[in-house]
Amino acid sequence: MDKETFRKFGYKFVDWVADYFEEVEKYPVCSAVKPGEIKDRLPSSPPLHAERMDTIFDDFDKIITPGITHWQHPSWFAYFPANNSPASVLAEILTAGVGAQCMSWQTSPAAAELEEVVMGWLRQMLGLPDGLTGVIQDTASTATLCALLTARERVTGFKSNQGGLREPLVVYSSDQTHSSIEKGVKIAGFGRENLRLVPTDEAYAMIPDKLEEAVRQDKKRGLKPACVVATLGTTSSTAIDPLADIGRICGKHGLWLHVDAAFAGSAAILPEMRWMLEGAEFMDSFVFNPHKWLFTNFDCSAYFVKDPAALIRTFEIHPEYLKTGHDSQVKNYRDWGIQLGRRFRALKLWFVIRSYGVEGLRAILREHLRLAKLFKSWVEEDERFELMAPVPLSLVCFRLNDGRGEAGLDEMNKQLLEKINASGAVYLTHTSLRGRYVLRLAIGQRTTQERHVHAAWELIKREAEELLKTSNR
Amino acid sequence: MDKETFRKFGYKFVDWVADYFEEVEKYPVCSAVKPGEIKDRLPSSPPLHAERMDTIFDDFDKIITPGITHWQHPSWFAYFPANNSPASVLAEILTAGVGAQCMSWQTSPAAAELEEVVMGWLRQMLGLPDGLTGVIQDTASTATLCALLTARERVTGFKSNQGGLREPLVVYSSDQTHSSIEKGVKIAGFGRENLRLVPTDEAYAMIPDKLEEAVRQDKKRGLKPACVVATLGTTSSTAIDPLADIGRICGKHGLWLHVDAAFAGSAAILPEMRWMLEGAEFMDSFVFNPHKWLFTNFDCSAYFVKDPAALIRTFEIHPEYLKTGHDSQVKNYRDWGIQLGRRFRALKLWFVIRSYGVEGLRAILREHLRLAKLFKSWVEEDERFELMAPVPLSLVCFRLNDGRGEAGLDEMNKQLLEKINASGAVYLTHTSLRGRYVLRLAIGQRTTQERHVHAAWELIKREAEELLKTSNR
Repeated sequence: MDKETFRKFGYKFVDWVADYFEEVEKYPVCSAVKPGEIKDRLPSSPPLHAERMDTIFDDFDKIITPGITHWQHPSWFAYFPANNSPASVLAEILTAGVGAQCMSWQTSPAAAELEEVVMGWLRQMLGLPDGLTGVIQDTASTATLCALLTARERVTGFKSNQGGLREPLVVYSSDQTHSSIEKGVKIAGFGRENLRLVPTDEAYAMIPDKLEEAVRQDKKRGLKPACVVATLGTTSSTAIDPLADIGRICGKHGLWLHVDAAFAGSAAILPEMRWMLEGAEFMDSFVFNPHKWLFTNFDCSAYFVKDPAALIRTFEIHPEYLKTGHDSQVKNYRDWGIQLGRRFRALKLWFVIRSYGVEGLRAILREHLRLAKLFKSWVEEDERFELMAPVPLSLVCFRLNDGRGEAGLDEMNKQLLEKINASGAVYLTHTSLRGRYVLRLAIGQRTTQERHVHAAWELIKREAEELLKTSNR
Repeated sequence: MDKETFRKFGYKFVDWVADYFEEVEKYPVCSAVKPGEIKDRLPSSPPLHAERMDTIFDDFDKIITPGITHWQHPSWFAYFPANNSPASVLAEILTAGVGAQCMSWQTSPAAAELEEVVMGWLRQMLGLPDGLTGVIQDTASTATLCALLTARERVTGFKSNQGGLREPLVVYSSDQTHSSIEKGVKIAGFGRENLRLVPTDEAYAMIPDKLEEAVRQDKKRGLKPACVVATLGTTSSTAIDPLADIGRICGKHGLWLHVDAAFAGSAAILPEMRWMLEGAEFMDSFVFNPHKWLFTNFDCSAYFVKDPAALIRTFEIHPEYLKTGHDSQVKNYRDWGIQLGRRFRALKLWFVIRSYGVEGLRAILREHLRLAKLFKSWVEEDERFELMAPVPLSLVCFRLNDGRGEAGLDEMNKQLLEKINASGAVYLTHTSLRGRYVLRLAIGQRTTQERHVHAAWELIKREAEELLKTSNR
């Protein structure tokens, strides 16, 4: 492709993104295509000869876009958000153009040093302890796996890396923990049976006494407790595990404390939300995702550790072909995680933080928190609806309750969710809390305004009314 | 940022990338900054208030670019290449703008279905067996870890996921294998001591008889052989392990056969290079990196498996909050690897394959292979230099040899490499083959032409001459 063609389509795609940001509301939030519909429209074999960029873009426009579920839609209330932002997209253009592979300092000195600096900024922004050192991972799944592996090595004196895992090591989290903990426990060889799901209180937060009880029982049975994963902001209901109490138990029993704050961590840039981090001094590791609620393109997960040497000792490899003259003086981030190859992710974080400024980011998060409180008040005021969990952050868990008893309520709420989402006007997802089917409205998309939350509530009420009318319960 | 500002800087950055592609030769290939130099120029705290994009870009230009090692430089001969291309960068703009998180089919139907289609294209392009199914991973490190984990689960009847790894399982690879195998073996809990590095022949390829011998010995000792990792194109010298012979041994002993073709795999788009894949019918899994030699932005690793059900069973998790109505009819790629969250990586592959066409891609690879043969002939014709390994692909391993015996040769070649790279005109790296320090010249950057390889050779000769003159050996 010659320079002029690249430039022409580069401009065109920038325009496309600019329009997309402005007009995303015209699309249904969740794509309405049927399984196989996109695939059927694509040739099953690759083209032998070059195709023009016009043709390729035309297919993108006609075939791909109808199959996109719009994570950047202001009426995105599903899962947690995965935000981008103009500054982040701009940075991604440069990152893609430079095409650096940032495995070692020498293969991209600026990427390694910018990562160190920007992770220092994030640490300060969240008010994390000074002693923590940061590294960018792709996702919280990966960061948590890193934590579990480092905990495994520490508790076995770095012997499982050498001789293989032979002991029954135990991991603890609450019964509200994210599925990535289970996945990590399996990958690292602990085994699903050695993950204890500690009971939670009425706010869905881990009960410290129950944790200590489980640790004592395991010790009595000859098992070796290794790691506790506490969650700040569970996926189901953003419950906040009591860090200080859990930390004290970890300290007493010599357990690794990993904190999964994938979504909620960003809220700690607000001084008024720092209460979540009380007990942070006990943390061995901490992860949160700027790609969720800090407007930085997926993927970008911020992982902080108290003891980088333990992390490095868990992962480092020393093949001759990767040695460079600077190895003793620099950070080679290839030894700070699973993958050898690494993208230049620090650049987009740097662009985003500078483009908004800390106060700019705070303002958006404060508005999201305000909107959640507002939505919560609407739910509470409407007797047909029921709030299903506390709202410490910007996720509201609720359900329709016609007051005729539990039987059939799950099915009714499932139908309600389907009707709401079928509208295409909003996208919500569900969860299960104490076995009950619950609707989740997660506020956190960068462009979500009061009018979007209000429209969602009007739609929910309308669909609920319709459902109650036709319901033959 | 308003739409006009985004558009203005979007254009500006597209221009920057267009110029970068054209003018990258004006930069030294490997950044000459000293450790700490970039960091010292960056503020240690984040800005409280928003900064203008002019200011941010200005800092990118002045502070960051001097610290970039230019992987897209045509005189990049280090490691293996990590190519981008105009089509790939264009796709990345759209990917960043859409900002989809592709964990489940429903969260991005187009991404899931395009991935399925494009991986089918790659399978056909490489002439891989029909029975293989593809999924995009970030890196070969991750793909190989997936293979090791699936092998672990298959050999333990999917019990280590549940009860934890308790048996001594053994993994085999050649003594030339990539460091990511050792890393994966440690992560998956096998333990470094249970990785057997099978001896290699004079071409640095695994000796099948030695593999079988090792397997028999381990069985005799009561250990359980689990997995063989064969390499097509080792990192040190692109040695090609004999797949068919290794495959037969795996078949006989019921071992998982994973094939790491991270760099070399792309060459299989050339019918004349398909000999590498003889025995492919024995493979349980196969990985190659389009981000290396297929002009698709890092990260993009193509992982193929014979039995997707085994892969899924290794990784799947079923939290309520991820369930969707379509789960039984679609591919949810979150269950095909380590991470839950996934970028929309299929788009750039689609753009690249269509923009070049299969024949267009073949032409570039054929030219790289031709240039390597040419460079090899220059080395062979110059009596001061010595070829250190066969050249089956586009990597040439060589060294300076003044004919005065082995003592001091390593040090002399180390000095030679330093002088070559200090010029900034080219970037080469080194390896160790049978304990000897060897220079690697890897040809594979998209824009590398004969003049770049020729200039590299002239520089190497000039520096060697200088060194031989001043050497007091």
